[in-house]
Amino acid sequence: MSVKLPPRSIEWVGGLDGCIRLIDQTRLPNELTFLDCHDVETIYEAIKRLAVRGAPAIGIAAAMGVVLGVRDYPGLDRAGLLARLDEVCDYLASSRPTAVNLSWALDRMRRQLREHEAATVQQLKPVLLSEAKLIRDEDAAMCRAIGRHGLGLIKPGCGILTHCNAGALATAEYGTALAPLYLAHEEGRQFRVYATETRPLLQGARLTAWELSQAGINVTFLCDSMAGALMKSGKVDLVITGADRIAANGDVANKIGTYSLAVLAKAHGIPFYVAAPTSTFDPSTPDGAAIPIEYRDPDEIRRGFGPLTAPADVPCYSPAFDVTPAELIRGIVTDRGLVQPPTRESLAEVIGGSGSCRDSRTPT
Amino acid sequence: MSVKLPPRSIEWVGGLDGCIRLIDQTRLPNELTFLDCHDVETIYEAIKRLAVRGAPAIGIAAAMGVVLGVRDYPGLDRAGLLARLDEVCDYLASSRPTAVNLSWALDRMRRQLREHEAATVQQLKPVLLSEAKLIRDEDAAMCRAIGRHGLGLIKPGCGILTHCNAGALATAEYGTALAPLYLAHEEGRQFRVYATETRPLLQGARLTAWELSQAGINVTFLCDSMAGALMKSGKVDLVITGADRIAANGDVANKIGTYSLAVLAKAHGIPFYVAAPTSTFDPSTPDGAAIPIEYRDPDEIRRGFGPLTAPADVPCYSPAFDVTPAELIRGIVTDRGLVQPPTRESLAEVIGGSGSCRDSRTPT
Repeated sequence: MSVKLPPRSIEWVGGLDGCIRLIDQTRLPNELTFLDCHDVETIYEAIKRLAVRGAPAIGIAAAMGVVLGVRDYPGLDRAGLLARLDEVCDYLASSRPTAVNLSWALDRMRRQLREHEAATVQQLKPVLLSEAKLIRDEDAAMCRAIGRHGLGLIKPGCGILTHCNAGALATAEYGTALAPLYLAHEEGRQFRVYATETRPLLQGARLTAWELSQAGINVTFLCDSMAGALMKSGKVDLVITGADRIAANGDVANKIGTYSLAVLAKAHGIPFYVAAPTSTFDPSTPDGAAIPIEYRDPDEIRRGFGPLTAPADVPCYSPAFDVTPAELIRGIVTDRGLVQPPTRESLAEVIGGSGSCRDSRTPT
Repeated sequence: MSVKLPPRSIEWVGGLDGCIRLIDQTRLPNELTFLDCHDVETIYEAIKRLAVRGAPAIGIAAAMGVVLGVRDYPGLDRAGLLARLDEVCDYLASSRPTAVNLSWALDRMRRQLREHEAATVQQLKPVLLSEAKLIRDEDAAMCRAIGRHGLGLIKPGCGILTHCNAGALATAEYGTALAPLYLAHEEGRQFRVYATETRPLLQGARLTAWELSQAGINVTFLCDSMAGALMKSGKVDLVITGADRIAANGDVANKIGTYSLAVLAKAHGIPFYVAAPTSTFDPSTPDGAAIPIEYRDPDEIRRGFGPLTAPADVPCYSPAFDVTPAELIRGIVTDRGLVQPPTRESLAEVIGGSGSCRDSRTPT
């Protein structure tokens, strides 16, 4: 049985004069529409307003965005191109601060100039496009590898709770947290998924419920506040989420609410797993306290659905992410294997030490 | 300093031919509008669609609704009036199953016929109206008493998390969980309140944030999923919520999400309190497992704000309440005192044993 994935969340269409085509995820589940980005400002806005989201997909979007930002550079001097590249990378890096895949992808793009010392400006532009496409293809491969390494977690008949969207829409294909589910479904295993709604922007209800049901996987959605009652009812055997950044000690930044779910899982004796590709590990960040947390505009909460749902003048606490300490995480499913339990040592062994993961280009 | 409470959430206007006037809470915080209910069907619908909500306010609405349902009874025979009364009570009791205040108030209305054996039908109708108004006035008195008994919990400078709305809007006046806050504010104590949004119908953001800010109390709202991160940040010293039904052993049914907050509070060493009037205790329900839990229409979640926010064909888990076991509750603030810790024995001592609380008519 082959699994029906959604269309590609993001891809490059055409040659160097082409564009980024992405699913406008703000329109789901009401309509499946595509957005073509022909300039760097458009992809910046798409990242900022979450038309494309999910740490791996943001990395791909940023890499392809670099191509949009430099391809029209009119000069023929490498120094000028490098300056333009730096400017574009700084601009794109400012779109969202928490997911490390973004800066990881931008670093890879910058590195192309160093690695092709003799290339002319006209030669470098297609090199950058190739690298961006490679980042996309590697992400797809990493997701499939995560699926294989996490497949053993999906026992027949089990109930799996996931948060936000760490699926095909968040990545090049297959997803991170959802990759083992897609592979288990391909094998014909029966299981049930519970997707938390994920306030404020409802990626769980809008995106995860959508993509899993499209694939024919048994999924039920619920409000974030219902997760405790659901766990107490005995219906959840496993929690698995994605990650936006994983520090050297295994602390995980992920969508706000992940930490609450990890605490609840522990209280109910339910194993809590995280799934992430190599590009999400940041050995240069020692622990969760060092991860910058993005705070979003409170109006995303106050007017998230149109009408005002809270007094306009009452302050709002609006972190987009929280940090789950490693000790609450049973294991991290990576493209290089299942790291269980995640510790500074076990992660260094699989992923590599400070900075080394950023140099990796060969996922297994 | 006198605290500025919102207008009365529910009251009876005029004489026996008058009506129930209530704040239409579905319109807040956008507009403060009142709904006049002249017949029992209108108040039934108002309860059902949560125009009036909160366990104590529902009890008052039901009692006043009985008056609307029987006042036009044309006969002069007591047996006929009794039959009509039973019919109206059964109808109103079916509006919402979890809050025990509703059946408690209806029982009190039914009892009037037994207690006035010699009264004629024409004499009984004003008796029923008086009883309904008494239930309202008693609730206001119970809320003030809860405020006094809980005042000691509100330490200067502390941060208090509350869920849903257990304030003036949920009761006759002052609220249950919010009553100690209003009294502390009257005394000039400084503190900060965190109001969880409370999906799906956002009573925390729409109602609690509104009424507290109207009163000049320092309040911040947040999505339900953010409570764990907020607790971890050290900003919460106390959690206090209302209740919809309290079983004999101290298990508490309250708005969905309360149980998750109690687990999170325990994990962070934060004391978790519940505040409720005598009318919310149900000694005839042995424990939380025996409390019926209302499941609401999933479209309240899918289309809570107009646009579709989840695929229409994906199932939804939609309990309106959950049960927090007594062992997670540090104490219950009642109108008769603070019961700490809540156990079958300590509650029986303060509230009375099976059935007895329902006979109480004299709050302290």
